[in-house]
Amino acid sequence: MTETIVACCQVSLRVGETEANRAACRAAIAGAAEEGADIVVVPELANSGYVFANAEEARRCAEPLDGETVTEWTDLARAHGLVVVGGLCEVDDGGVLRNSAVIIDGDGVRAVYRKAHLWDREALVFEPGANRPPVVDTAHGRLGVMVCYDVEFPEWVRLAALDGAELLCVPTNWPLEPRPEGERPAEVVRVQANASVNRMFVAACDRAGAERGVEWVNGTVIAGPDGFPLAGPVCADRAVTLLARCDLSDARVKRTSDRNDAMADRRPELYAPVSR
Amino acid sequence: MTETIVACCQVSLRVGETEANRAACRAAIAGAAEEGADIVVVPELANSGYVFANAEEARRCAEPLDGETVTEWTDLARAHGLVVVGGLCEVDDGGVLRNSAVIIDGDGVRAVYRKAHLWDREALVFEPGANRPPVVDTAHGRLGVMVCYDVEFPEWVRLAALDGAELLCVPTNWPLEPRPEGERPAEVVRVQANASVNRMFVAACDRAGAERGVEWVNGTVIAGPDGFPLAGPVCADRAVTLLARCDLSDARVKRTSDRNDAMADRRPELYAPVSR
Repeated sequence: MTETIVACCQVSLRVGETEANRAACRAAIAGAAEEGADIVVVPELANSGYVFANAEEARRCAEPLDGETVTEWTDLARAHGLVVVGGLCEVDDGGVLRNSAVIIDGDGVRAVYRKAHLWDREALVFEPGANRPPVVDTAHGRLGVMVCYDVEFPEWVRLAALDGAELLCVPTNWPLEPRPEGERPAEVVRVQANASVNRMFVAACDRAGAERGVEWVNGTVIAGPDGFPLAGPVCADRAVTLLARCDLSDARVKRTSDRNDAMADRRPELYAPVSR
Repeated sequence: MTETIVACCQVSLRVGETEANRAACRAAIAGAAEEGADIVVVPELANSGYVFANAEEARRCAEPLDGETVTEWTDLARAHGLVVVGGLCEVDDGGVLRNSAVIIDGDGVRAVYRKAHLWDREALVFEPGANRPPVVDTAHGRLGVMVCYDVEFPEWVRLAALDGAELLCVPTNWPLEPRPEGERPAEVVRVQANASVNRMFVAACDRAGAERGVEWVNGTVIAGPDGFPLAGPVCADRAVTLLARCDLSDARVKRTSDRNDAMADRRPELYAPVSR
């Protein structure tokens, strides 16, 4: 077994306070590194916070891919020999705002993803991406990435699985919705199901810190290929780092019985109408 | 609100004992009718049981669509003004064994579905179907149906949702798998996630009665469009009928925020590679 330590840093963010957010992420990543983390996931829009008053406020927070946040994450990745996956309020080369996520190792940005499914007022601020979720080989495993609401589209998650992701990293900011007492958040349930039907690990990193009246699920969770949580869900509004020791090669085993295989049993020729 | 009472009868089955199985289903359906049920779901292979010694044993249990079981379910549907959805060990017109499910009302068989994704030794007995899950309008709502392992393929569930199913009925025989203490069965978690991403009701009817050493999840559950159980999961090896009062029209509301819609937010032009 090759043991990979996956960390999710449920940091507390504050909208517009980019210096404080960057410092919180830096401290959390460094702390996870001290705990031996090989892969560290931080939330969606980890540099900016989420509840923008308007697009102008988002633009003031946005950074290019060679900006301070990515530079800092690259430095941390290099210093500690780890991979950072995090959400970024990005201004792209064309000056367009993107709700992005990056996969970074010591060599820099290995992949950038722009959220393809935008939630509610994000559509007033960001341009959605149109590229499939990237899946890249790193020193610590084959990683996919998408952002928050994207995981409500199992077709999208399946693409990452078909591309061989062993661990799907999902930076999120999950606004809190009511749920029946004793029930796990639906956001967490969907992560578990996505992990299980694809037989892959999923690390969903939510955030802490109520923002302009919006509370969060605080649902950070790391699920294994059988769909059960290996760490979390947190479900408490506090900054905390979850760690899970994972053998990511387990995600390459799609066999589920003597005669079944989660991927080979798909019948894509029958699913074509899904694309309509 | 139009209230529809959905019932799932987790009956206890015994492989090969078709008379006893039929009697158990009959009693359960009649009992559900007394409780006011409008739609009654019974398990997969409700006439035959599941753990066949070989294909010959399955063939001895199999019935055509005008056989005793379907005739009885039609009589019950007519007598009580309800819809029956159940799993049937079927021999089709060509003499081929099918792991089927039927939607039946007082007029008879409204739809027949042949399980498209076969689990383990089923492949030694049954020919898989190649038709998409049927979705039909009944007096009690627009119903879809698929069987057990089929729901592990979210693409398949999506087809039923795209076709407008308000309630997806899932006759199952879920073999028991180990799970961490305190965790809900992964089978139930997947049902919840399917309900939630599609904003539809899902009624999964599992069975009771250990059979030739195989135990069952006994995970009968009725989930609402937000993914939370309205009844169940049972998770106990006993014959029991679950009832849930549902406004199935809730499943026609796909809106999830001021700017979001679970179906309209799909980007099928980007999912095409799923069909590969």
